[in-house]
Amino acid sequence: MAKIKPSIPKGTRDFSPLEMERRNYIFDTIKGVFRKFGYSEIQTPSFEHLTTLTGKYGDEGDQLIFKILNSGEFLSKLTKGQLTTVDSKTLIPFISERALRYDLTVPFARYVVMHQNDITLPFKRFQIQPVWRADRPQRGRYREFYQCDADVVGSDSLLNEAEFIAIYYEVLTSLGLRDFSIKINNRKVLAGIAEVLNQTDRLIPMTVAIDKLDKIGVEGVIRELSSNGFGEEEISQLRRILESSGSVESQLQVLKDTLKTSTIGQKGIDEIEQVLEYVTLLNKDIFKFLELDITLARGLNYYTGTILEVKTNEVQMGSIGGGGRYDDLTGMFGTSGLTGVGISFGADRIYDVLLELGLFPEETSIGTRVLITNFDSATEAYALPLLTKLRTHGVSAELYPSAAKLKKQMTYANAKNIPFVVLIGEDEMRAGIYTLKNMIDGSQVQVSEADLFKLI
Amino acid sequence: MAKIKPSIPKGTRDFSPLEMERRNYIFDTIKGVFRKFGYSEIQTPSFEHLTTLTGKYGDEGDQLIFKILNSGEFLSKLTKGQLTTVDSKTLIPFISERALRYDLTVPFARYVVMHQNDITLPFKRFQIQPVWRADRPQRGRYREFYQCDADVVGSDSLLNEAEFIAIYYEVLTSLGLRDFSIKINNRKVLAGIAEVLNQTDRLIPMTVAIDKLDKIGVEGVIRELSSNGFGEEEISQLRRILESSGSVESQLQVLKDTLKTSTIGQKGIDEIEQVLEYVTLLNKDIFKFLELDITLARGLNYYTGTILEVKTNEVQMGSIGGGGRYDDLTGMFGTSGLTGVGISFGADRIYDVLLELGLFPEETSIGTRVLITNFDSATEAYALPLLTKLRTHGVSAELYPSAAKLKKQMTYANAKNIPFVVLIGEDEMRAGIYTLKNMIDGSQVQVSEADLFKLI
Repeated sequence: MAKIKPSIPKGTRDFSPLEMERRNYIFDTIKGVFRKFGYSEIQTPSFEHLTTLTGKYGDEGDQLIFKILNSGEFLSKLTKGQLTTVDSKTLIPFISERALRYDLTVPFARYVVMHQNDITLPFKRFQIQPVWRADRPQRGRYREFYQCDADVVGSDSLLNEAEFIAIYYEVLTSLGLRDFSIKINNRKVLAGIAEVLNQTDRLIPMTVAIDKLDKIGVEGVIRELSSNGFGEEEISQLRRILESSGSVESQLQVLKDTLKTSTIGQKGIDEIEQVLEYVTLLNKDIFKFLELDITLARGLNYYTGTILEVKTNEVQMGSIGGGGRYDDLTGMFGTSGLTGVGISFGADRIYDVLLELGLFPEETSIGTRVLITNFDSATEAYALPLLTKLRTHGVSAELYPSAAKLKKQMTYANAKNIPFVVLIGEDEMRAGIYTLKNMIDGSQVQVSEADLFKLI
Repeated sequence: MAKIKPSIPKGTRDFSPLEMERRNYIFDTIKGVFRKFGYSEIQTPSFEHLTTLTGKYGDEGDQLIFKILNSGEFLSKLTKGQLTTVDSKTLIPFISERALRYDLTVPFARYVVMHQNDITLPFKRFQIQPVWRADRPQRGRYREFYQCDADVVGSDSLLNEAEFIAIYYEVLTSLGLRDFSIKINNRKVLAGIAEVLNQTDRLIPMTVAIDKLDKIGVEGVIRELSSNGFGEEEISQLRRILESSGSVESQLQVLKDTLKTSTIGQKGIDEIEQVLEYVTLLNKDIFKFLELDITLARGLNYYTGTILEVKTNEVQMGSIGGGGRYDDLTGMFGTSGLTGVGISFGADRIYDVLLELGLFPEETSIGTRVLITNFDSATEAYALPLLTKLRTHGVSAELYPSAAKLKKQMTYANAKNIPFVVLIGEDEMRAGIYTLKNMIDGSQVQVSEADLFKLI
């Protein structure tokens, strides 16, 4: 058999012990905050019925769903004639009935409808699981990646929005980030702007233009809107909004003046103000990170109220989180009228940010803490009771599994980032003591068992 | 659109908040012990190249692998003629290049070979991830289920075997199990028995017969062997072994006498004795749960030395764990000579056992601990600073997100198993205090903020 070096499919990744430790650090931090805010974990299956997923992500999305081939004689549902006349796309439903999860939102909607009799509303759930997309892999884009979502359904209270802002604040500061922006907008404000511009039915092209403000500036946005047939007078209204800056309060004042003739616009402003009031009561410190950004139009086809997005300002990176309110999550499965609001964290991007900023904790709390050396069966017998005692005290410990040269054992300790090595030779056994080597500063002391426990 | 109640594919499961809490309790216990023994977590992708998986699990296994349909124009690799002449099985490699993980062992072998330059041996890893099998679903058998594996490769020390026994002991006692058996055998002992029976090349039919001892008794086993052409004299040797009982020591003595002419048999006995000696040095308490079981033949095509299996004696249930040593894990990927030993936990079965025995912790440590009631915007404003303070002190807390009747809020607290409810009405606000209701015993007290923190 020829030796072929094994590999993994494009767009997938193995995670080494060090990478897992760092990923777990991020996930555990997020989970801890979700739980502190009353969110409970659920999990859904990796694959769903193909019919559950198709039609939910648009035509392009449908093509990126990984389909699972039916087991056994999967061709049996087809005649030979059909086989030669159909194309790949038409053939899919005949040979595939299951598909890999594409996101966590559609499975969550399916879960809520399927288990509606067992759920007490409001239902606050979080879910951290991989999703799969047959996208072209590129830097930072994978075919298998984790999503971290928290959603509450069945409550229209804007306290939920404020708490999600507090969750972002607490997770990101816990991870050591010091300069980030939690941006808030409201779809109703955008609808209000469209209304005062007399372009209610052209909300989408308007927000597409506004969304480019960062890149093309106020004049660029205005040029694009003019060429799209927006009138001069209306545009001057918009200019005031786009050029407004300063505090959230002064921005809101400009919005109030400009949108005073739009009922929906006023409603959007009211919602933003109510969210901000809740944030004030929860924790005033959050305001340092909060920005009103009316160019924020993320997922506009989907969100119906508040829109949120989080960016770090310490490194160049796209958004590391986002979310918003949607008024009809479960309508796709026949249960309408259930409002919800949710956020997600971009764990892979947060990983890259923490790595670049050197924010991962230096010393691991979960790896092996003590390695005991092994030179022969006598030292082994001397070491084993200590090994058990260390573990009984909750200390991760290993005895090198067989007699080996010191250098080899030290290499092992270094490769695993083990901070302490206990050396046992004839002298130590005779005196009933241990030599403890600190692998970080290289120091070495002879200690009793009691002192050893104190030092590690 | 017709309302179709959504469902999930056969053999898959949703996990509710309560089920997730219980599953996490099991997984966290196992992970904690793995880490204390120096095992590090890795993860591998959910899907591998189809060629990585096929041919590793036998013909039947190959058919149970879930294959992923290629994306896009997956028929383009086929001519129309091929399409009408091939059968389903022949067609697979033309339309599928990826497949879902079937177990954690083959991906681990692939990982070790692929990353051999980055790994320091011995490599101690654990892995807890779902696997998928297109098996016919039945009670306790799922198409998606989690495996919990720990393996060490690159060390032939029998200390590893002893530590796995200690890991089983610590995990199962930590979970509250009080009566279980950790069974040990060695493939070399079975080979030795075949040798003294002059049936070296008929090891498999012999162990298949011995494996039935529990069901058909000594006479049944002997009858089956006789009808398979094993001679009278040899069988009487075997009878002595099968009928040996009592302590592990006395069983080993019978084996030593019976297998004295077999070199490989003696080697197997030596290995078992060495493992037992290590266990003695690690923790004598383990012996209460340890059994020598020469009928244990689990995975015989695979294991080359120690064989382990764990059963609970408190409820009727198949094995809840097993493992053993294999001398050529990575040979399938072209790197031979790497010995390894590993174990796994049957998490789904352990879940059922703990549920049946009522061993899940009553009070959750991770769910919401305090719900604050919400009757109007005034109580809301009074409640929010307390809510933040509770969370700052690490207490999971929620404010009911909008004003609602008391009954509705109590129903919510009960559904989420929240142990404490803080009631805030006009009296409380005037006096600057809180009414704290204990949801378990129903008692209710008026307390200051400081006392509230003491009581919860």
